[in-house]
Amino acid sequence: MRAGVIGATGYAGAELVRLLASHPDIDDLVLSSVSFEGEKIDDVYPGFLGRISLPLGKAADVVAAADVVFSALPHGICEQYAKGCKVPFIDLSADFRFDDDEATFNAWYGKPYQHPELHGHSVYGLSEMNRERIRKLAGSGKAIIGNPGCYPTGAALGAFPAFAKGLVATNNSPIIIDAASGTSGGGREPARSFHFPECADSVSPYKVGGAHRHTPEIARSFGVMAAPEAAPPVIFTPHLAPMNRGILSTIYIPLSDAWTGKPDGKAIRPPSKETLEKTAAIHALYAEFYRDEPFVRVLPLGVVSATNRVRNSNYCDVSVHLDHSGSTLIVVSAIDNMVKGAAGQAVQNMNIIFGFDERAGLGMIPLLF
Amino acid sequence: MRAGVIGATGYAGAELVRLLASHPDIDDLVLSSVSFEGEKIDDVYPGFLGRISLPLGKAADVVAAADVVFSALPHGICEQYAKGCKVPFIDLSADFRFDDDEATFNAWYGKPYQHPELHGHSVYGLSEMNRERIRKLAGSGKAIIGNPGCYPTGAALGAFPAFAKGLVATNNSPIIIDAASGTSGGGREPARSFHFPECADSVSPYKVGGAHRHTPEIARSFGVMAAPEAAPPVIFTPHLAPMNRGILSTIYIPLSDAWTGKPDGKAIRPPSKETLEKTAAIHALYAEFYRDEPFVRVLPLGVVSATNRVRNSNYCDVSVHLDHSGSTLIVVSAIDNMVKGAAGQAVQNMNIIFGFDERAGLGMIPLLF
Amino acid sequence: MRAGVIGATGYAGAELVRLLASHPDIDDLVLSSVSFEGEKIDDVYPGFLGRISLPLGKAADVVAAADVVFSALPHGICEQYAKGCKVPFIDLSADFRFDDDEATFNAWYGKPYQHPELHGHSVYGLSEMNRERIRKLAGSGKAIIGNPGCYPTGAALGAFPAFAKGLVATNNSPIIIDAASGTSGGGREPARSFHFPECADSVSPYKVGGAHRHTPEIARSFGVMAAPEAAPPVIFTPHLAPMNRGILSTIYIPLSDAWTGKPDGKAIRPPSKETLEKTAAIHALYAEFYRDEPFVRVLPLGVVSATNRVRNSNYCDVSVHLDHSGSTLIVVSAIDNMVKGAAGQAVQNMNIIFGFDERAGLGMIPLLF
Amino acid sequence: MRAGVIGATGYAGAELVRLLASHPDIDDLVLSSVSFEGEKIDDVYPGFLGRISLPLGKAADVVAAADVVFSALPHGICEQYAKGCKVPFIDLSADFRFDDDEATFNAWYGKPYQHPELHGHSVYGLSEMNRERIRKLAGSGKAIIGNPGCYPTGAALGAFPAFAKGLVATNNSPIIIDAASGTSGGGREPARSFHFPECADSVSPYKVGGAHRHTPEIARSFGVMAAPEAAPPVIFTPHLAPMNRGILSTIYIPLSDAWTGKPDGKAIRPPSKETLEKTAAIHALYAEFYRDEPFVRVLPLGVVSATNRVRNSNYCDVSVHLDHSGSTLIVVSAIDNMVKGAAGQAVQNMNIIFGFDERAGLGMIPLLF
Repeated sequence: MRAGVIGATGYAGAELVRLLASHPDIDDLVLSSVSFEGEKIDDVYPGFLGRISLPLGKAADVVAAADVVFSALPHGICEQYAKGCKVPFIDLSADFRFDDDEATFNAWYGKPYQHPELHGHSVYGLSEMNRERIRKLAGSGKAIIGNPGCYPTGAALGAFPAFAKGLVATNNSPIIIDAASGTSGGGREPARSFHFPECADSVSPYKVGGAHRHTPEIARSFGVMAAPEAAPPVIFTPHLAPMNRGILSTIYIPLSDAWTGKPDGKAIRPPSKETLEKTAAIHALYAEFYRDEPFVRVLPLGVVSATNRVRNSNYCDVSVHLDHSGSTLIVVSAIDNMVKGAAGQAVQNMNIIFGFDERAGLGMIPLLF
Repeated sequence: MRAGVIGATGYAGAELVRLLASHPDIDDLVLSSVSFEGEKIDDVYPGFLGRISLPLGKAADVVAAADVVFSALPHGICEQYAKGCKVPFIDLSADFRFDDDEATFNAWYGKPYQHPELHGHSVYGLSEMNRERIRKLAGSGKAIIGNPGCYPTGAALGAFPAFAKGLVATNNSPIIIDAASGTSGGGREPARSFHFPECADSVSPYKVGGAHRHTPEIARSFGVMAAPEAAPPVIFTPHLAPMNRGILSTIYIPLSDAWTGKPDGKAIRPPSKETLEKTAAIHALYAEFYRDEPFVRVLPLGVVSATNRVRNSNYCDVSVHLDHSGSTLIVVSAIDNMVKGAAGQAVQNMNIIFGFDERAGLGMIPLLF
Repeated sequence: MRAGVIGATGYAGAELVRLLASHPDIDDLVLSSVSFEGEKIDDVYPGFLGRISLPLGKAADVVAAADVVFSALPHGICEQYAKGCKVPFIDLSADFRFDDDEATFNAWYGKPYQHPELHGHSVYGLSEMNRERIRKLAGSGKAIIGNPGCYPTGAALGAFPAFAKGLVATNNSPIIIDAASGTSGGGREPARSFHFPECADSVSPYKVGGAHRHTPEIARSFGVMAAPEAAPPVIFTPHLAPMNRGILSTIYIPLSDAWTGKPDGKAIRPPSKETLEKTAAIHALYAEFYRDEPFVRVLPLGVVSATNRVRNSNYCDVSVHLDHSGSTLIVVSAIDNMVKGAAGQAVQNMNIIFGFDERAGLGMIPLLF
Repeated sequence: MRAGVIGATGYAGAELVRLLASHPDIDDLVLSSVSFEGEKIDDVYPGFLGRISLPLGKAADVVAAADVVFSALPHGICEQYAKGCKVPFIDLSADFRFDDDEATFNAWYGKPYQHPELHGHSVYGLSEMNRERIRKLAGSGKAIIGNPGCYPTGAALGAFPAFAKGLVATNNSPIIIDAASGTSGGGREPARSFHFPECADSVSPYKVGGAHRHTPEIARSFGVMAAPEAAPPVIFTPHLAPMNRGILSTIYIPLSDAWTGKPDGKAIRPPSKETLEKTAAIHALYAEFYRDEPFVRVLPLGVVSATNRVRNSNYCDVSVHLDHSGSTLIVVSAIDNMVKGAAGQAVQNMNIIFGFDERAGLGMIPLLF
């Protein structure tokens, strides 16, 4: 089986190449790159020397030659390749993340769909949420997957059990996602924000106040999980942290009345016995919800998610906490933005589509550091 | 004038030494250290070579010899030195941060006051909030200052104008402070959490769920700012970020009814013109509130606080934002945890006590990087 | 086949566990730890959760139960386990790196051999240099391997072809190895030198002037490569760099008369055409020498070794350069100190001993970053 | 007195602005920038907000208006401004670093002098080496200073006493300078090499083999120190380290016959008592040589230079070592590349020219971290 990667020299594309080169069900790779057409992938990534030395051709040729196509191009130009593609098409851009909601896509990405007819036949590729829909679509002959953004993956997987288990307040209180990303999230192209002396040894938020394009994507998943009419408002603040990889999301979920209980009184005190027991109960619900998921780990009580514990793996770690008053659920999720947040989840989706073991090619144990 | 520093070899103590050595109104320094008694400060900090080479003696001798005493010892052992001190005593531990609220101190720090009578004569040293109280206390002859914690400084300065200008909801919605600190906040003693391979290239929260001792300190300041009966609940989540210095606090403040207005509807859209105008109005209130403060900078609209823009300075930078629906005020504050978050604010408090120019010895322009 | 790791909770031990858990020829693992006996490995390394959850027992039990034993204990206590071990014993400490040269071991490590008789039957495990000796020893029934230190691996692999091809001056000019290591080289135990605020954003050498214990180990390899009587003096300066993993060695090798040629004259000018041609000729010799090695990559001319291009792999990258006057060969080698510099090379040695594919379990393609 | 900075928005220019704004003898600043003409300096560097808010004009206007001009423009365009300048002109580019040796400048920088006549009246501004020449030039009415490069400053100050005290071998053995720089050395313009994910957590050399333009500048200083005919060859290898600031130079100086003594024999052993005594003797010579220098600190025996101990200061720290055989002097120097390596030394040169206290405006005590 031959996999194709178009846009193979960006970070997500190259990470796909790296993962697919070790995938037991993939025999062959074909790659394209606009910027480096005519060169070889190990010219651009010397770390691949001796292992992956494939030519970089044209996207159209890749689409024509492959049994599955991964698109790691910027948003706005992927629909055309999906249109002409006769095999499963897994798109890592935003082009297929909004199904037929063209209005929202247009409002945030500033352009209409080029091929609206395709969007009724695509699925948002958050594997844990849409596994069955992906399988069904694959069965229908042609599959287009809108592979999720990195932040939306961490946010949705952190909140999913809370929605499923009826923990989320329905009084219109917002869910706040305060998240930090490593610098690779900004891609391979040099820019001032990611220039070492400008971002090392510093933390800062960006696009504060709902201006980040992942906001509607997160809200959409929450809408699906909660039933759209009960979906809570979403506030999302991304931060840039001085690290290469990883996304840490701290998610504040106001508890439903059933779970809030009586507050502990005005005096601020460390968490009471009751609050700790409630934490354990919610933790058990989370653990049960994700029991059979191969890539979501609900951490033991007392262990907190950290980005370095999932590095170079497809895991999403989730830790469960309550604020000291017991009225807000605080979930911390950690992913490797390049793996579960991009290339790894794309491979996971391929595995689902083709009926491979969902873990195939994704068996990496997280690095120690 | 001779300043004394007890506990001079911890990070906060050494930063005090560094700042006081360049202070125009300080002629002389006397230092103590338990761990390094008998050595010299530049044996412990070779960066001071050729500049500060003072012997490290006993705390009691420092207290007896100085015209002002800074205490950079751990909490729980400072009251005794304050008790015997005849000159202004500026304590960087938590011992004097809770005034006469012994119950809260005891609940979080696990011990009662040793000298309860002192706590009626101390002031919490958040300079911008308590400047007049500090001056008054200084006039009374003896001053004990409970210098604020690093996180509480960033949180309180970010929220202060919101309380003062009536922006904060009074419906018991929590204010959430999601903050990241550099590793120097953990002090000089090696520990696994701050061991380079365990924390570099990673972000993780700690003491999630209200277990951090800075929570009641933040709540206390909010109580003062809001009038205690209207104080909102506080949720505080500290994170460790892979950097040396700095605290970045992202503060989510639910707006009061007067400011919330009509939501923009269910569809998630980028901030509307109305929301942007409201942001500008609130920004103007913030700018006006801090207009005369020497160390708080309300950043121009469109500029976001970042820890590297206040590095090695006593500034607290504050940027003002609204979420896309216009119902939650998001304030981002940045301080250098060693300066405004510890030693710098202590010097600022000394300046207030003695009637020096409040900026004396604190004229550092932030580093470029 | 069952592999045992004694000292499994230090960094090298845990990296061994991680690699062996994915090794196709290893069915089972048994582990020991002094510090964490009775706990499980994923209690100590939560990143292993859901993947490796083995109990930590006693070293003697591991030695008795395993078909191959890896020892990741500190030097000075490994001989006793080797003594009683009836299966191949791969020791990552210094205990078996000096063959029967007890005097040198004693001079640098401060203790005599406990079991001198073992040292005639051990081999220094620099795989590329001693592959045949390792195989022969394995054939003899019992094998003890002194797995090389991290710095000596990078230094020896960088210089090996120069000796083999007669490039090295024999006039007693020293070979200088100026090397930088990531902080994981210091191990898992917290210490001031590796405390984040003390080492981040800084570079500094340590044990300058020949005091580092890897000096005699490097000299020994050079002696083997050069024939002992022609071995050049060695100067080795290790530096600590603010990174997690990796060793970069810049190796200055005075060229033999045959290669030095006529200097370009006193005026300092960029490398001449002749110098560039000589560089290409030496590069070709290096490439030829390592042509069949699975884990040494001689980089194309114009590409320079960097630690991030070998991260999480067993590769040693080597780049070849000449100084501008054409009289000193400058070789830059890069390894991942935890893999080729420790656990990976140990697995490689196991593969050699047991006749597995030498690449088995070591197929990791370097991370992008 | 009014200082002018042309090219004020690059890193060196902005650091100059920061230093000059706190200089007691400077009353006023005028600034220019090509890229940001018409904006204000605090638009470009928001860290300056509230402190330095000056307009960015044209270079020619700055030259006309100032009492001293600092030029922080790229090489090749500074001569023209020096030509028209009637006041002291301190150039941070390479244009005036080679006196009248146009051939060398041309060979390395690829262009001839535009105004050769100026180069007879300029001085290379390594303050400690040329203080008297700078004073004399200043007395002559017009002074042009070629402010040294960052690497050459660290290298020259580390080797200077060795030349002055007759320690350096005269047998044509090369002095090797193996140096590591923080990323700010690459300037403010984003580029792949300094893109965070490409350089964080990694060390790599660049321009290996004598291709770095600082090589002839270092060689030139050595030629002056040694008398040109006895100048040793120079090998210089710069490395990029993942830090913001700092240059660490490890300098290998073959000792002269008088100092080499009898080698300790073939066996590699830790430094002998004789070698340690010789180290102490050489250390004493270094300490004596720099006794009166305000900005060079010879560290006590046993303390090793590190970049974080000079951060944000104008110090050059120097530590003195011998290799274990006692035949090579190893000097480690550390500077802050932005201060002593650029803007700080420029201010120091201004102080010399105008007869100010040489420490004026440069009193920063190094940061703790």
